[in-house]
Amino acid sequence: MRSRVGVGIIGFGTVGSGVARILQNNAAIIRRRVGVPLEVVRIADLDVTRSRGIDLAPGVLVNDVKQVVADPHVDIVVELIGGCDFAKRILLDAMESGKHVVTANKALLALHGEELFAAAARKGVDLGFEASVGGGIPVIRAVTEGLAANAIQSIYGIINGTSNYILSRMTNEGQGFAENLAEAQRAGYAEADPTFDVAGTDSAHKLAILANLAFGSPINFKELYTEGITHITPHDIAYAREFGFTIKLLGIAKLVDGEVEARVHPTMLPADSPLAKIEGVYNAIQLVGDAVGDVVLVGRGAGDMAAGSAVVSDIIASARHLLKGGAGRVPPASFQQDQRRPLRMRPMEEISSLYYLRFMVLDRPGVLAQIAGELGRFGISISSMLQKGRRAGQTVPIVIKTHTAQERSVQMALREINRMDFMSEPATLVRVEGKDE
Amino acid sequence: MRSRVGVGIIGFGTVGSGVARILQNNAAIIRRRVGVPLEVVRIADLDVTRSRGIDLAPGVLVNDVKQVVADPHVDIVVELIGGCDFAKRILLDAMESGKHVVTANKALLALHGEELFAAAARKGVDLGFEASVGGGIPVIRAVTEGLAANAIQSIYGIINGTSNYILSRMTNEGQGFAENLAEAQRAGYAEADPTFDVAGTDSAHKLAILANLAFGSPINFKELYTEGITHITPHDIAYAREFGFTIKLLGIAKLVDGEVEARVHPTMLPADSPLAKIEGVYNAIQLVGDAVGDVVLVGRGAGDMAAGSAVVSDIIASARHLLKGGAGRVPPASFQQDQRRPLRMRPMEEISSLYYLRFMVLDRPGVLAQIAGELGRFGISISSMLQKGRRAGQTVPIVIKTHTAQERSVQMALREINRMDFMSEPATLVRVEGKDE
Repeated sequence: MRSRVGVGIIGFGTVGSGVARILQNNAAIIRRRVGVPLEVVRIADLDVTRSRGIDLAPGVLVNDVKQVVADPHVDIVVELIGGCDFAKRILLDAMESGKHVVTANKALLALHGEELFAAAARKGVDLGFEASVGGGIPVIRAVTEGLAANAIQSIYGIINGTSNYILSRMTNEGQGFAENLAEAQRAGYAEADPTFDVAGTDSAHKLAILANLAFGSPINFKELYTEGITHITPHDIAYAREFGFTIKLLGIAKLVDGEVEARVHPTMLPADSPLAKIEGVYNAIQLVGDAVGDVVLVGRGAGDMAAGSAVVSDIIASARHLLKGGAGRVPPASFQQDQRRPLRMRPMEEISSLYYLRFMVLDRPGVLAQIAGELGRFGISISSMLQKGRRAGQTVPIVIKTHTAQERSVQMALREINRMDFMSEPATLVRVEGKDE
Repeated sequence: MRSRVGVGIIGFGTVGSGVARILQNNAAIIRRRVGVPLEVVRIADLDVTRSRGIDLAPGVLVNDVKQVVADPHVDIVVELIGGCDFAKRILLDAMESGKHVVTANKALLALHGEELFAAAARKGVDLGFEASVGGGIPVIRAVTEGLAANAIQSIYGIINGTSNYILSRMTNEGQGFAENLAEAQRAGYAEADPTFDVAGTDSAHKLAILANLAFGSPINFKELYTEGITHITPHDIAYAREFGFTIKLLGIAKLVDGEVEARVHPTMLPADSPLAKIEGVYNAIQLVGDAVGDVVLVGRGAGDMAAGSAVVSDIIASARHLLKGGAGRVPPASFQQDQRRPLRMRPMEEISSLYYLRFMVLDRPGVLAQIAGELGRFGISISSMLQKGRRAGQTVPIVIKTHTAQERSVQMALREINRMDFMSEPATLVRVEGKDE
């Protein structure tokens, strides 16, 4: 039996440092679990001078990726540089040379997962990506192993910490999106360019991965409806509260009549539902299986040590395969490669949902009747309505919650209503999860 | 490669039926994940006549356990009869003949886990027991694989649905323990003899299993402090609420200075903490690791389909090993068998905690001073106090929350106070989790 397992890390930034730190700090306990030590043989980074506060033997840190992949002492290659083209090349090359690979690269998996899954299956090597969704939360394992007995029916996820931090603060402390974004940037919870997070792209990458594994179908990322939180106002949050709801940026994926419904958008959740209570930078994923019912997993969605925990769990899994066999035991895409079925992605206009609609209107007689009439004309019925602060001749909000309606009808109705001369700005729409009552 | 994997089930009761039903209903999706079908070859039960609503081929259901274990077409033996001696014999015999085994038997694992772990390690077979803790929640996998990179520091679990259902109802609907127990029995959430659940024994079995895996140490079940919920009154729940707390039956395990602290008892939790919000028959386990921080897993803790989901996840894991190798990849006790270290179990009197104390006293001058004086004499300081409804000469409650104190001191102080003539009944004590402030 081999006396050690060699690890090569490519990318020595935040997560890479976390991985190296965990492998160093917890070397003894990991060895007691695995049976042999995990040794960091090589780390490649363009910056070989900056100190990361981690003791490395001389020669471990190099600036050439090839020295990691080609090193015969590296059994497991860990890709943590991000981006798509170069990262994909690294993973494909490493797998081609028979090495197990681990990555935290959700964009790469969402956009090029199929190519990577096929390569891993063909070579019989591990492709670990626990860190790609939910930081330290072991959600990939839950989908591929823990709930493997289930037909998974739906997934609901708060899977972007930055957005959740901002929405939580807007809910608890008030103020608008821009002020809270600035605060999140000061606190280190938002990037200098936060577009990826607040526009929903990051959540959509993660949701695409989960839906792919859960439903056994490739997901065409371009068809995944994605809407961010930048247009959510403190007013919407306040009205949501009056209706008994909390606004979260949610990734939702469902299997409906053999089709995949997958979408990321701000969502009103009943304030007492498990996901509504997830605050700050925490992530949470609710998985619903036909046997298990609903399972909710909560934890830190980002950070060097949380993501590092997930990366190292994948390294440990591959080390165990190297020692005891079983690589390819769980197919990377959860389903056997030849047993996956491309399912139709249901276009957004075909989904049904409850809706919250906010109309900023000139306060004059007959406006509500016109709005209600237009909604009715498109078959949309109203379950509740709020109209506050009457100020004749000025702009006031009319807020409406609908019964279940089709997205297409709602969009058509809003198009008509937005044209009306009493509308002072386009209507705001937030989809609502919960019972239609 | 083999074209099928054979499953033998021993015990065709609630969980056994759930397992058979899942294997039948989800046969196609499981086959797409595993690569070959899982076939239920044999089921043994004393009752071979009762219909469980599941189609079985003739000859599958037998009344002789030996026919399951000895059947050469049975690759995986699933023990679901409960009890200790006979169940252990079955598992040991099956492992001895080289078969993988799966069990949901938490009492057996808590009391005889070491013997089973050693047998599995010696024979290089799987011993799966995901269903033993938290029903369908994949918590065993979280400890042994998902968080394998971490030094696990503590575990907090609501791991008995019956007790949580009763406490939730006492909290939300009022009334006492007895009334809510009766209601739980009517609703099917409590057994006719609920002792195991409400006395904390079931929670203690599950906590012993989790602590064993998390800390890499055998747990002497007899040393695990266990206290149930039968003495909790609606008054305690109401006072807890006034202090901002909710009462839950909690399993707590911590690694403190190289010693294991493991205990099950009613616990006051801050009302806004994640576990305080877990209601009804749901289970929840919070795991704290040095890298990942805290992870919370929530789901249905019992029921044929939830427990069946966990059992079948273990069957799938073993089937994957039969197909691709890797049995023994993850040691059943999470740590390599020769790398486990028996740690001292910290006796209950050595733990430190915050405490809630309720004294039912004759309302007369000087009583509070005497109680406070006695607590002070044992080094216990008071953080807050409630005294309600003064009725001179009658019995009234004095409720005290302490700063951090040692269990031994608290018990000694209560012994002294209980002797005092103004005490109308022995003092009630509930331990409190939360910040000492």
